[in-house]
Amino acid sequence: MNWDSLFAERTKQMKRSTVREILKLTSKPEVISFAGGLPAPELFPIERIRDATDTVLQERGQEAMQYSTTEGMPELRELIARRLSAGSLKISPNNILITSGSQQAIDMIARIFLDEGDSVIVENPTYVGMMTSWRPFYLNFLAVPTDNDGLIVDELEPLLAQNPKIMYSIPTFQNPMGTTLTRERRTKLAQLLTKYNVPFVEDNPYGELRYSGDPVPSVLEMEAAARGSTTVDGSVIYTGTFSKVLTPGLRIAWVVAHEAVIDKLVQVKQATDLHTSTFNQFVSYEVARDDEFLAEHVKMLRNVYRQRRDLMLQTMEENFPQEVTWTKPEGGLFLMVTMPEHLNARDVLKEALAQNVAFVPCDDFFIGDAGHNTFRLNFSNSRPERIVEGIQRLGAVLKDAVLQPS
Amino acid sequence: MNWDSLFAERTKQMKRSTVREILKLTSKPEVISFAGGLPAPELFPIERIRDATDTVLQERGQEAMQYSTTEGMPELRELIARRLSAGSLKISPNNILITSGSQQAIDMIARIFLDEGDSVIVENPTYVGMMTSWRPFYLNFLAVPTDNDGLIVDELEPLLAQNPKIMYSIPTFQNPMGTTLTRERRTKLAQLLTKYNVPFVEDNPYGELRYSGDPVPSVLEMEAAARGSTTVDGSVIYTGTFSKVLTPGLRIAWVVAHEAVIDKLVQVKQATDLHTSTFNQFVSYEVARDDEFLAEHVKMLRNVYRQRRDLMLQTMEENFPQEVTWTKPEGGLFLMVTMPEHLNARDVLKEALAQNVAFVPCDDFFIGDAGHNTFRLNFSNSRPERIVEGIQRLGAVLKDAVLQPS
Repeated sequence: MNWDSLFAERTKQMKRSTVREILKLTSKPEVISFAGGLPAPELFPIERIRDATDTVLQERGQEAMQYSTTEGMPELRELIARRLSAGSLKISPNNILITSGSQQAIDMIARIFLDEGDSVIVENPTYVGMMTSWRPFYLNFLAVPTDNDGLIVDELEPLLAQNPKIMYSIPTFQNPMGTTLTRERRTKLAQLLTKYNVPFVEDNPYGELRYSGDPVPSVLEMEAAARGSTTVDGSVIYTGTFSKVLTPGLRIAWVVAHEAVIDKLVQVKQATDLHTSTFNQFVSYEVARDDEFLAEHVKMLRNVYRQRRDLMLQTMEENFPQEVTWTKPEGGLFLMVTMPEHLNARDVLKEALAQNVAFVPCDDFFIGDAGHNTFRLNFSNSRPERIVEGIQRLGAVLKDAVLQPS
Repeated sequence: MNWDSLFAERTKQMKRSTVREILKLTSKPEVISFAGGLPAPELFPIERIRDATDTVLQERGQEAMQYSTTEGMPELRELIARRLSAGSLKISPNNILITSGSQQAIDMIARIFLDEGDSVIVENPTYVGMMTSWRPFYLNFLAVPTDNDGLIVDELEPLLAQNPKIMYSIPTFQNPMGTTLTRERRTKLAQLLTKYNVPFVEDNPYGELRYSGDPVPSVLEMEAAARGSTTVDGSVIYTGTFSKVLTPGLRIAWVVAHEAVIDKLVQVKQATDLHTSTFNQFVSYEVARDDEFLAEHVKMLRNVYRQRRDLMLQTMEENFPQEVTWTKPEGGLFLMVTMPEHLNARDVLKEALAQNVAFVPCDDFFIGDAGHNTFRLNFSNSRPERIVEGIQRLGAVLKDAVLQPS
């Protein structure tokens, strides 16, 4: 069989995720990896989850093991609606669809909105997993530049005027940069969204993980406020997840959107995988229904991750050559490093791997031919002593690299 | 927002699954529903699963709750490869991708193979969930007629000559008919497949649930044998699942295919949902690794479902009017009823629901304008006394219906 001749045209637009391929290389215990987007496994609430699995199997075992509705477990949708309702915004369970991770939400959004040739606005750089999913739709990506305050909203309006089908952004603790869209820019963004009525995907996996600075409202909330609305009836399609605040292994996430959008997403989800694991929804609900536990758990995560972020930033300050710069995130899992223009992060990664330290080159996160000299560091997944050791090794690699002739 | 104007063209090809919408209507306890494709929840091995969740969380909790590889848990892939290797066919774990239910496998197969306008061969009627997924690709469905021995292979060759991109079939205990492709026809089919090199999707969710008659080898196995091959290097793409033999609530299924196909499916799965729930893979492995338990459990399911099938067939014989005919499956979950041409199953369903009994009209399972007078009955999900009561009620409804003037 000549399989290559049989695959669909769109498969030529597909490529394996660099991040996930690098993760495979870094599974050896001697490698200190800052590559993945992994939460710290030693902080997973295993005992709590074990109690929850026991309770679910004892009290509602047959139901938890059966097929269930595509929309998701009603109690879980109610809980998420209640947790996300903020300020004057009241979210209804009818605005919520449970998905198998946020990645599935992002993928399904593409399936309901994108036709071949559509223009799509993204910030630059942006989440590579979104591009892995959306690239096979043959899109025209319109890139909004970013700085340390998130996407530069003043450069957005000319792009909105180009009739884009949809816009995608991680406004809070962005991947790969770790930066956050400021409140002032959110206000301007919300006004632009109400003016142009372009569906805006607010991908928010990290929002609860803030370590410093003042909290900012979601774009979902601000866009509704800008219209004087108190319900989810605007252009924002919001995604959230338990992967970063509880555990990614259960794959429980959600979309919040206008009911017309949820209705289409439900149809796609029926076609895609019928529904998200009944058991995992029941278990996640059983863990998360205890408001006090969840609040304490997230507080603990913030404390640990804050220390790791601070330790990484301090060790970078002490060990990285002065030619290198980096972002200083107020939350999330990542920061992004920029090297001098003449350096290529993929070459530097080879040197780093020889010293058993790993990161993710960011070129794949950029639209167009940019970002070759940038890479992403994760600070949540490594214990303090490994952060220090790994950043010291990486500092030495970078010092060697910047000395090389350009 | 005028959302309808924003959705992609392909969403116009989407519609909600009739089956799943009917399931919602039938959730009231007083309704005796033969509509779903549900296994019997009272037979789920809840205690065994509880032991497995405890073991997994105690021994490998952090790993089970973390992100994991797209391909799936290595031990689970090995176990499935070993269980499916049969006769001279030796399956490698590299031929296996773990999916979130077989529905996801079917959906991802479409994404890697199907371009707009492609021709696809399916048996008629065929699984409606496949059509829900594949219809938005704007396909030309070529329908092979079926009888009580499965798809009529003699009518297949002219369709294979029309350059179809792919062929889809449930050869064993078909949905909705319950029929099985005979060994003789499988032999002919395998020869045709080796001649035409058309990828053949063998969807096999029910294969282990045989209650009578002689087992037949999978098309995967017979196609390899027809080429004298002992490895998975042919045109068959096989899907299997734990949903019917353990529990659907964990959503653990798999694809078996040539490594070139697995490679593309892995790329799509990365884009779709990164990977199937780590925890559910670990738990399923922990339950299924005990060969003896699994064999005993499947034997028990076969005994219970055989009794329910026999009871349903016997009660139909006693209560259905003679103008109505039905299939007599050797396994699986379903049988299909054919009423006189002048009756419409959707009208009869209304009468049935008024008597608190439900089924699924099969018109959506048919290609073209056919099947209006057919419906599907599930016999696995109802306890014996409810099978008798429900079929008696349905018999009365059908007797009334056939008396109506055409």
